[in-house]
Amino acid sequence: MDMLWSGWGDPAEATPLPDTVIGLLHDLLGVEPRGSGPVALEDVAVPAPRWEPAARRALVAAVGGEEHVRTDPEARIRHTRGKSTPDLLRIREGDVTDVPEAVVLPAGHDEVLAVLRACAEHGLAVVPFGGGTSVVGGLAPERRPFVALDLRRMDGLLALDPVSRTATLQPGLRAPRAEALLAEHGFTLGHFPQSYEWATVGGFAATRSSGQASAGYGRFDEMVLGLTLATPRGTLDTGRAPRSAAGPDLRQLILGSEGAFGVITSVTVRIRPLPATRLYEGWRFASFEEGAAALRRLAQDGPRPTVLRLSDETETLIGLAQPDAIGSGAREPSAGCTAVAGYEGTQEDTACRRERAAAVLRACGGTPLGGEPGRRWAAGRYSAPYLRDALLDAGALVETLETATFWSRVPELYAAVRDALTGTLTGAGTPPLVMCHISHVYENGASLYFTVVSARGEDAVAHWTRAKHAANEAILAAGGTISHHHGVGTDHRDWYLREAGPLGTDALRAVKRRLDPDGVLNPGVLLPAD
Amino acid sequence: MDMLWSGWGDPAEATPLPDTVIGLLHDLLGVEPRGSGPVALEDVAVPAPRWEPAARRALVAAVGGEEHVRTDPEARIRHTRGKSTPDLLRIREGDVTDVPEAVVLPAGHDEVLAVLRACAEHGLAVVPFGGGTSVVGGLAPERRPFVALDLRRMDGLLALDPVSRTATLQPGLRAPRAEALLAEHGFTLGHFPQSYEWATVGGFAATRSSGQASAGYGRFDEMVLGLTLATPRGTLDTGRAPRSAAGPDLRQLILGSEGAFGVITSVTVRIRPLPATRLYEGWRFASFEEGAAALRRLAQDGPRPTVLRLSDETETLIGLAQPDAIGSGAREPSAGCTAVAGYEGTQEDTACRRERAAAVLRACGGTPLGGEPGRRWAAGRYSAPYLRDALLDAGALVETLETATFWSRVPELYAAVRDALTGTLTGAGTPPLVMCHISHVYENGASLYFTVVSARGEDAVAHWTRAKHAANEAILAAGGTISHHHGVGTDHRDWYLREAGPLGTDALRAVKRRLDPDGVLNPGVLLPAD
Repeated sequence: MDMLWSGWGDPAEATPLPDTVIGLLHDLLGVEPRGSGPVALEDVAVPAPRWEPAARRALVAAVGGEEHVRTDPEARIRHTRGKSTPDLLRIREGDVTDVPEAVVLPAGHDEVLAVLRACAEHGLAVVPFGGGTSVVGGLAPERRPFVALDLRRMDGLLALDPVSRTATLQPGLRAPRAEALLAEHGFTLGHFPQSYEWATVGGFAATRSSGQASAGYGRFDEMVLGLTLATPRGTLDTGRAPRSAAGPDLRQLILGSEGAFGVITSVTVRIRPLPATRLYEGWRFASFEEGAAALRRLAQDGPRPTVLRLSDETETLIGLAQPDAIGSGAREPSAGCTAVAGYEGTQEDTACRRERAAAVLRACGGTPLGGEPGRRWAAGRYSAPYLRDALLDAGALVETLETATFWSRVPELYAAVRDALTGTLTGAGTPPLVMCHISHVYENGASLYFTVVSARGEDAVAHWTRAKHAANEAILAAGGTISHHHGVGTDHRDWYLREAGPLGTDALRAVKRRLDPDGVLNPGVLLPAD
Repeated sequence: MDMLWSGWGDPAEATPLPDTVIGLLHDLLGVEPRGSGPVALEDVAVPAPRWEPAARRALVAAVGGEEHVRTDPEARIRHTRGKSTPDLLRIREGDVTDVPEAVVLPAGHDEVLAVLRACAEHGLAVVPFGGGTSVVGGLAPERRPFVALDLRRMDGLLALDPVSRTATLQPGLRAPRAEALLAEHGFTLGHFPQSYEWATVGGFAATRSSGQASAGYGRFDEMVLGLTLATPRGTLDTGRAPRSAAGPDLRQLILGSEGAFGVITSVTVRIRPLPATRLYEGWRFASFEEGAAALRRLAQDGPRPTVLRLSDETETLIGLAQPDAIGSGAREPSAGCTAVAGYEGTQEDTACRRERAAAVLRACGGTPLGGEPGRRWAAGRYSAPYLRDALLDAGALVETLETATFWSRVPELYAAVRDALTGTLTGAGTPPLVMCHISHVYENGASLYFTVVSARGEDAVAHWTRAKHAANEAILAAGGTISHHHGVGTDHRDWYLREAGPLGTDALRAVKRRLDPDGVLNPGVLLPAD
């Protein structure tokens, strides 16, 4: 099934907001209901492909058939940008300025190489396209014309080694299909980001995705043992051992390269036995600070739950932690902050970890809320993007952003980003709701995930962009990273370059020029186009 | 204290082999006793520095004083090459063809930058020098003249964050001093490679060192959260968060770069509470295969000991796993393979892990040998290099090498390397003893550490080089990495380039040229000199 072109996910799953919530948005934030949803797909005006007929012929030859080079308006619209709120605001109005000239569907590594050669020859840029779920402008290159390289035909499980517990996956595999293929052998990858239902293995690797069960299974970049990269200059193969002292880790140069160095055509990952048990529970803490200290204690001294997250007071109150229960937070027995701790594994292991973790959480001031908040979180864990569509339909502006830092800097980073968002949007006449949760924990630090809701202002994209830039500045000033798991794309690029520093940027540009001398790959994503 | 110039460690710790062992070496391997140890230090002929006076003046200005630019023969001899067996064979005979023109001792990051500028200007290459313990030719550059950049004056603890559990260390800190500084605050790094007593923090980072407690504390590259690199083009600073999705991981580009991209001038690492308990125990398995399966089970399903290693039948028999007890293996109650499992942590945590791990090891066929083999291993854990000196003194050839691969390939890699070493040395008329242990375990694979003892042949260096090259070929052919924790240096370089592949090599060369356009840094180490 294809993703909704003008929003998120399966159109059948879309649910409008209840009138009570629309009323609350109006009363609380001044959100004015808007009658108009997205324009109709057939009303979007797509210009004819801007390329020479020879380019089309070369691409058809590269992928072995006309049917794998699609130029129909619908295919091209469906590959225009990603799923950030600015992306959705633009596409809902029929703005297709970032439309690809064509959608090219290779069947394997060699066809990807052939496509890259053909594009270099014909002056076309290439945007690798997995699930199309980028929220950082990762699919809107700065050089035109370009083709979207849709990897959906490369969706196989290439190898599985049950002894070493590794699997080699093709990049176009969507996560649920990857899990289904691994489950046939009794294994799981354990990677469940919010984009899980739509995102692909190649995208996870290219953007250093991090899933909701990262406390137990690790980030995606920690799961990767090997990668194959197709570049305009040939193939780069990495990963002969789990760990090595043979030079810099080339895998870590490909992870996070966001299609700017090459197209990831296979990913070898560690896999784990399918858990017999999955159990998620809620905990209440008096404050975000108290809850954060409890999470830190578990992250540093264990036992480590598989899922571990903590909403701040506002998010707890609004109940956005369980988007299907929006507004229900106020009915909880006490104020404070809700955490979710989840355990996956064997019966014995989960029971043991759960008991010991519960003792730690109690000792840190936590009150157990039982299984209900955990079940609600699990039921709604992938539904926030649907809620965003409903909020946009209702005339609100809603977006998320995230960062990470070391534990001792978390309070300052939290306050700085919240103040930047609140200050900017209030100054622009639309006081926002700013919610936050700790979404991922490490021994040495944590990530902060912010959700912002406000009225949308005159020009919604410009309105949000001002707030976002203020948040980016606050993140850098407070010592955070510009992205913990969304990536760089074009939206974060200017701040990323400051984070990497001139010499770090220079080193990456040197790699880019060596692997992609004509600047074919995702120009402007990650690094400025030359 | 300075390391013995012609061998390993503290000269007071050197112990000659007992006559029984010398007899065994002769009877078993045909090793002929040799009367001559190393030449006397004062008999080594060191040529006068080959540089312009202006170069010396510039370096003195860079480091703020004559006393920090040493050109006396002893200092230069002490900075000639590292501690591989070929290095020792050469230096013992007074061969100083790889001698630096001078030893330069900067006091901080800015002085390192100044040294790099001065060297670029005066056509001098630069070899960063930490503990001088390289066993892969990492201190013998291909371009002359060069200076050794000894980092011993940069040996401070710059910062410690007990909340985030991070510490920022200078590169010239030797590991015991780093541990002592951290212990004042109740913390440990947990990095205990065989070179522990002499190696430095900067060297650990530059070579992706892995310690004997890696099952519990991780490899050094997994401990690193941030690095500062001084390059001829300026400073590169990395690490704003434990993990990030902001592009490729630049830390992982610096780790393993072996001084070829820059000089590491600070390292931020994760630290852990000092363990209350340390306990090491022995286990016996019927075969290497059975023992490896048991280690794999613990590495994959836990509980994970802090130390976990397994000697093969030969190493168990010879007792080299406890070098101070060489020959005692034959007195053990049964044949088979000895493993050491160690636990460090709180009383409760070690007791819990030990009990559960013991159940797993028993279920996998292990027989507990109690604390004695563990105590013997712990007592001798840093003494193998002393034993090597004694063996060289006795006329034997002895060297180690190591690799890693995925679990399913371990048996093939083990057989391939053993056959290559045995075949080559036997073919050359000196049938060797080849011993092996699994030194480090991961969920998805393990490392193999080989020790070879034989008679030395006519030209000992050439004799070993043939065997080593055969092992390198076997490693690549069997799918292993050319080094799991010793690094690349000059000795592994040609095989490393094949492992990285032409495009991977090209990417690294592009980085090198960008950061070090004049090729000043460690020319020929890691990558070929231009």
